[in-house]
Amino acid sequence: MEDTVAHAEKHFGQFCSLLAAYTRRTARLRDKADQLVRQLFAFANTEGPGLRAAMKDFAEDLAKVQDYRQAEVERLENKVVNPLKLYGAHIKQTRAEIKKLKRAQNNEIKQLQKLEKLRQKSPSDRQMIGQAETSVQRASADASRTTRQLEAAVGTFQRQKLKDLQKIFSDFVTIEMVFHAKAVEVYSGAFQTLENYHPEQDLQDFTAKMQGLYGHHAARPLAGSDPSLPVPWLPTSQVSAWVGGLIL
Amino acid sequence: MEDTVAHAEKHFGQFCSLLAAYTRRTARLRDKADQLVRQLFAFANTEGPGLRAAMKDFAEDLAKVQDYRQAEVERLENKVVNPLKLYGAHIKQTRAEIKKLKRAQNNEIKQLQKLEKLRQKSPSDRQMIGQAETSVQRASADASRTTRQLEAAVGTFQRQKLKDLQKIFSDFVTIEMVFHAKAVEVYSGAFQTLENYHPEQDLQDFTAKMQGLYGHHAARPLAGSDPSLPVPWLPTSQVSAWVGGLIL
Repeated sequence: MEDTVAHAEKHFGQFCSLLAAYTRRTARLRDKADQLVRQLFAFANTEGPGLRAAMKDFAEDLAKVQDYRQAEVERLENKVVNPLKLYGAHIKQTRAEIKKLKRAQNNEIKQLQKLEKLRQKSPSDRQMIGQAETSVQRASADASRTTRQLEAAVGTFQRQKLKDLQKIFSDFVTIEMVFHAKAVEVYSGAFQTLENYHPEQDLQDFTAKMQGLYGHHAARPLAGSDPSLPVPWLPTSQVSAWVGGLIL
Repeated sequence: MEDTVAHAEKHFGQFCSLLAAYTRRTARLRDKADQLVRQLFAFANTEGPGLRAAMKDFAEDLAKVQDYRQAEVERLENKVVNPLKLYGAHIKQTRAEIKKLKRAQNNEIKQLQKLEKLRQKSPSDRQMIGQAETSVQRASADASRTTRQLEAAVGTFQRQKLKDLQKIFSDFVTIEMVFHAKAVEVYSGAFQTLENYHPEQDLQDFTAKMQGLYGHHAARPLAGSDPSLPVPWLPTSQVSAWVGGLIL
């Protein structure tokens, strides 16, 4: 009977520390994804309006998944790790009760053995044997009652253990399922956001900006375009501005 | 133009290391869940047939989710982290090309400035000015051509960057979405497994086993049941066996 409880204590202890570690690693994954979200926002602000909008939408979706992951972490702590911790305390209490009952039982057994020996030693003393028999019967009844109490305690413990186990792992599965379902939903939106982004406008803007910075060389007649024709001379100020533009 | 590339290098480098860390933390979460799977199997083997079957089914489902997580990790490495790494190498190459073009452009600009100065210093020397004008035009054309090359290189880079960015993050979202969808599917089955477990049979087996170990006290007439009636005496051997059973 003590084995049943000791066995449960060992396994539930291991489940508790494994699931606590699982929860912590989930929290660390969330931290890293949060960093990615911040990096995406920082990057978005340096890009053209189209990509900026797409990256911000994507970053918001990624942040939403992390919010759901945070909810997952909190629920795992409240509905899985903490009940397992409490369960550890409950097991300790049960063990103490069982020890107490065991001690009582052992005392009764010792008394039984003592009386049994006495009965065998002096089989002719009818009066003594009669007393011994009565005592054996009483001790036997006491031991039997204590055994029934022990059985009841261990039975209750076992019933509760199976129910708790079922509850805790069902909660684990439910929490995980809800998180994954939410993640699918949010990522579906994020996928659409990224698919709907078309870089053309951003590229046009980028080219325009670049030509603004480096001068619109294409609009200016170039010496190399037709070497046989006399090239109209550019005023000095214009050349300087253009050179300046190139240096900028 | 160099800023465009340097900026991309910085951000893509950060994306690469963040997503590599995200992938590593996902792998660590998988490791912890794998440990939980092993622990569930070890525990299942020590339990009654009903719980054993339920726990093994649940452990198998949890293991399946980890297989999908492993696939997620491999896909993230192949389709997200590695392309970002390769992108880093590509950026370095582009920067080297741009530097080369920049150097050429700077040389041309210097030549332009030199000739411009000469033209201003000796405005009366028609022949020298004529030569200078021709040289300025040629240098101007060269600088302009190099600028166009630079613009083309940066434009190509920017176009590729936007496309790669879209591809990499779309792949990230797809990989995550597929994993989460599979997890939902598997956990739905696990939830049913746990819901369908009813501890009654296991508890009956447990009680029977316990009574087998500790003697069927309920089937034996007890001294305490009716003290006024004479109790049939148990043979010594039977008492000893019972006492022995209690001690076991």
